[in-house]
Amino acid sequence: MYITSIEIKDKRFDLAEGVGSDATHTTPQYAYAVCCLNTDAQTTGIGLAFTLGAGNDLVCKAIEYLSVGLVGREIEELMSDFGTVYRGMVDSPSFRWLGPHKGVVQLALAAVVNACYDLWAKSRQVPLWKLLLDLTPEQLVNTLDLSYLEEVLTREQAIALLTDNLSTRNSRKDVLITGYKGYDTSVGWFNFSDEKIVENTKKAISNGFTALKLKVGSDDPLRDIRRALLIRKTAGDEATIMVDANQKWNVPQALDICKRLGEINPFWIEEPTHPDDVFGHQTIARTIAPLKVAAGEHIPNKIIFKNFLQAKAMDFCQVDAVRVGGISEFLTISLLSKSMGIPVVPHVGDMGQIHQHLVLFNHIGMNHEHLFLEHIPHLKQYFDNPAEIVDAYYQIPQTPGSSSDLKD
Amino acid sequence: MYITSIEIKDKRFDLAEGVGSDATHTTPQYAYAVCCLNTDAQTTGIGLAFTLGAGNDLVCKAIEYLSVGLVGREIEELMSDFGTVYRGMVDSPSFRWLGPHKGVVQLALAAVVNACYDLWAKSRQVPLWKLLLDLTPEQLVNTLDLSYLEEVLTREQAIALLTDNLSTRNSRKDVLITGYKGYDTSVGWFNFSDEKIVENTKKAISNGFTALKLKVGSDDPLRDIRRALLIRKTAGDEATIMVDANQKWNVPQALDICKRLGEINPFWIEEPTHPDDVFGHQTIARTIAPLKVAAGEHIPNKIIFKNFLQAKAMDFCQVDAVRVGGISEFLTISLLSKSMGIPVVPHVGDMGQIHQHLVLFNHIGMNHEHLFLEHIPHLKQYFDNPAEIVDAYYQIPQTPGSSSDLKD
Repeated sequence: MYITSIEIKDKRFDLAEGVGSDATHTTPQYAYAVCCLNTDAQTTGIGLAFTLGAGNDLVCKAIEYLSVGLVGREIEELMSDFGTVYRGMVDSPSFRWLGPHKGVVQLALAAVVNACYDLWAKSRQVPLWKLLLDLTPEQLVNTLDLSYLEEVLTREQAIALLTDNLSTRNSRKDVLITGYKGYDTSVGWFNFSDEKIVENTKKAISNGFTALKLKVGSDDPLRDIRRALLIRKTAGDEATIMVDANQKWNVPQALDICKRLGEINPFWIEEPTHPDDVFGHQTIARTIAPLKVAAGEHIPNKIIFKNFLQAKAMDFCQVDAVRVGGISEFLTISLLSKSMGIPVVPHVGDMGQIHQHLVLFNHIGMNHEHLFLEHIPHLKQYFDNPAEIVDAYYQIPQTPGSSSDLKD
Repeated sequence: MYITSIEIKDKRFDLAEGVGSDATHTTPQYAYAVCCLNTDAQTTGIGLAFTLGAGNDLVCKAIEYLSVGLVGREIEELMSDFGTVYRGMVDSPSFRWLGPHKGVVQLALAAVVNACYDLWAKSRQVPLWKLLLDLTPEQLVNTLDLSYLEEVLTREQAIALLTDNLSTRNSRKDVLITGYKGYDTSVGWFNFSDEKIVENTKKAISNGFTALKLKVGSDDPLRDIRRALLIRKTAGDEATIMVDANQKWNVPQALDICKRLGEINPFWIEEPTHPDDVFGHQTIARTIAPLKVAAGEHIPNKIIFKNFLQAKAMDFCQVDAVRVGGISEFLTISLLSKSMGIPVVPHVGDMGQIHQHLVLFNHIGMNHEHLFLEHIPHLKQYFDNPAEIVDAYYQIPQTPGSSSDLKD
């Protein structure tokens, strides 16, 4: 199957009042910069990158630059050594200046890379999770770019990690029957009223969710604490509650407020400060322990993840395949996290469409713990095959590809 | 003086064979994304961001998003609290997703911010260095955004640092007579032949330069070592020679090759590995000491600089005002570096046009050591007022503004 042309789409979706809001991103649209790989067959590979609307056109334009070399390539041949293709794209000698490996060009890379994996799975007529499980450790690692990780994860170590977990895969395949547990992010958007988050919490619990997230980071920390107590009281002591500051605090603020939020026994505190601040997160993680820190939604590449892991600055790794360099770099970072003992609990800019596949592979193929995957329902109606969640469990996707096709 | 409209220009300049090449950026153009602030007077504020050509249009497009709020603003009023304006631009709730504070949007920010300072200096009819020296410490700090630095540099500490150095300014004003020392980067571009770098070295020495740079990072380290020895032999034992790997090595490679380059007694080794890798640089700096590490050309913001400084991962801070968020963030990072004991020796994506002003202020106003400023002559003919260098010393610019005006 040959790639014959590239199409790029700028898709933006307005959200209902308050939906998607957090302390930093107060008035979001949800948007995808979409890379479509047309082929000589009836099949099109679809790759997404996620933004909040403004500037989505910049990502679309960058996709054009990065994808141009894919025209004429045969998909199996392309993916047989995709790590090299990937490195060629990210290290293109002049375009690279605009990053490197971060910002607009990295988001665009996500869309291009995701389209390649989507096409690969479709061409083999299997869902993405199955494609990844069907690959040998060598074949999988051939799709990755492990450069700049040499002192912590060599190619040989990556292959060994996958190989060592082959024989125990069956013991983890229960998840293909139970589905993958979800947690509900949409109960506690920042701009929702107290009444609304209480009502949403009740609804989520009655829908089977046992894990919920609340947005914090208010100018007045008392608002955060009041709302956190409300959700705890409504959901009960057994519920798992995460709080998410979306980078709003500086380090001294985070230390102060995290301590006070500790009262409600949160499962983690997410993005307590600026996503580039390795030592800031390290200080916070050390000081607030045993409270735990989650981060990664805004970390753009494997090198910064490496630094966070080396610094023990995160307890949960929230890599997002529509923020880093797509599925390839997501897998690289998952290997890195596994080798350094940190669980991966993705942020889902894709609304879980791609990540429902990736967490299945992470669990079965890498022996990452089956914790839970973020669930955000707001774009369901726009996908051809929206993620299905039943009693708070993601159902196993069976359609070929990465579930990224959007309705026209 | 009121800003009446914004104009954006995409300027690209082809270079002679081999010029500008390094181990990573093998075939550069030089390009500026230019933000022009037109006013109700005859004056236009000009701000530059630097790229290597490909994707310069993306930066231009991002300038449009960031600058729109400046129309209608009066320049003195704008600059009186520019730190707040700056924070408003970088934290615009949806556009911020594309960074934050890095990549294309940060380059665009540089152009917008630089245009504001340029206009401010022109409106007061003074060169930028004099404008900055004329401001009180409070007025200067009002133009900065110190958020996310609270645990290392508060507003009060920043003001105190400037105030403490007021009384000794006169002792550092010699530089206004001697000029600011330059070093020559253009002797040793990566693609130049051995003969050419020897010839260039001789020419540079005869033009008065005592400090030179060689690009390294060859696939075959023996090439690097051979060329470094050649330059050392040609320039003599007294010459100051820097070597620059432009991110080409991974950490184990850097450790190996730096040790071997130590033979020629380099003044620093620049960008030995990936610019995001704080711990990589820390390991290299610790291991190769007393050899010194320089970095910063690709570090996009104050937060990552903070981390490098905290880790003692750089001996020289090469912040570039056309990579970080312009003159404002350059000054923030200069204050940070000074307070943490590290000299600032800028990378000059602007060919030194703006930085010749900034190092004068850094030296006189902040008591940063007068080391030397990179000199790259390749775009001289395109500037209205190109930096003048006589006997290897930058002459003091006297024209109002930041010397950023380009010929049509």
